Amino acid sequence: MKTSLGAKTIVVPAPVWCIGSYDAEGKPNVMTVAWGGICCSVPPCVTISLRKATYTYGSIMARQAYTVSVPSADYAKEADYYGIASGRDVDKFKETGLTPAKSELVDAPYVEEFPMILECRVIHHHEIGLHTHFVGEIVDVKADDSVLAGDRIDMSRLRPVVFNPGGGEYYGIGASLGGAFSIGRP
Amino acid sequence: MKTSLGAKTIVVPAPVWCIGSYDAEGKPNVMTVAWGGICCSVPPCVTISLRKATYTYGSIMARQAYTVSVPSADYAKEADYYGIASGRDVDKFKETGLTPAKSELVDAPYVEEFPMILECRVIHHHEIGLHTHFVGEIVDVKADDSVLAGDRIDMSRLRPVVFNPGGGEYYGIGASLGGAFSIGRP
Repeated sequence: MKTSLGAKTIVVPAPVWCIGSYDAEGKPNVMTVAWGGICCSVPPCVTISLRKATYTYGSIMARQAYTVSVPSADYAKEADYYGIASGRDVDKFKETGLTPAKSELVDAPYVEEFPMILECRVIHHHEIGLHTHFVGEIVDVKADDSVLAGDRIDMSRLRPVVFNPGGGEYYGIGASLGGAFSIGRP
Repeated sequence: MKTSLGAKTIVVPAPVWCIGSYDAEGKPNVMTVAWGGICCSVPPCVTISLRKATYTYGSIMARQAYTVSVPSADYAKEADYYGIASGRDVDKFKETGLTPAKSELVDAPYVEEFPMILECRVIHHHEIGLHTHFVGEIVDVKADDSVLAGDRIDMSRLRPVVFNPGGGEYYGIGASLGGAFSIGRP
């Protein structure tokens, strides 16, 4: 039996991604989002949605670039903080003791300590309602050698954080369920 | 030390969502996607990206509606199959023995056996490149009573499937890492 929960932004799994940008003075900032996902394979693109009220919104509009830093479960607290505090008020990198690394490819910083990062340049943005929808072309993906198995990402080593917006809670990654385009073959 | 992996659509966590639609003859179809995410809070919207070559693309364009059915880990094989086979060739519901439920709110079916579903009407679509980006307004979310704790989604009961596109593998959900907007408070 299914219960109606209403018109809500609750669906799982949702990501926990930390969006890096530079403000007008060049100060690095980072903000956590759960509204986003890959949106095109060619060109490779990832979308994120931000409220105009966020400090990051103005920075991305000005520089037309952002990074996505994927925290491991070890950094769930820092990632949560990045979604609570505003770069208008504090230097979130300094507050958490993490390192803003300068991208050589796009005009935005990323979180050095996080195991996987995407460098993106904005190719489109679109007003939906409360949120503005940014489409960023992925210029490069970088990952720590410690989470790579050859040229593949090993999710059991990377251990990303998964968000449940309908429960207000973060989760870790569990066991492998099998290979994609494989376990369902008749 | 970070290694450059190139401009690729690899980021975690990615969702595993089964998109329901009716074709021109009214036959229910379902297709698995990993490219998608929530994209606006007001109105509540979820985006999915599809190649024009998919059977689902034409159905959604014609009916301007889709559902998102979230498989539990118990249905990882069926979800994988829904991403391999095409509704042009087979009736994927019949092949897997799962039930197409008719939405009373939008012109699309959902997978009755899956624990959480979203009913969406298309309010925008946008060509990016290989993929077309659909923005669907969430008209309702429904969940099985068995995955609810009061009016909250209990992710440890729902047990969604998480995709790792950079490893080609599905994963289950692990342990709770704590409350959102809570564990990072200074």
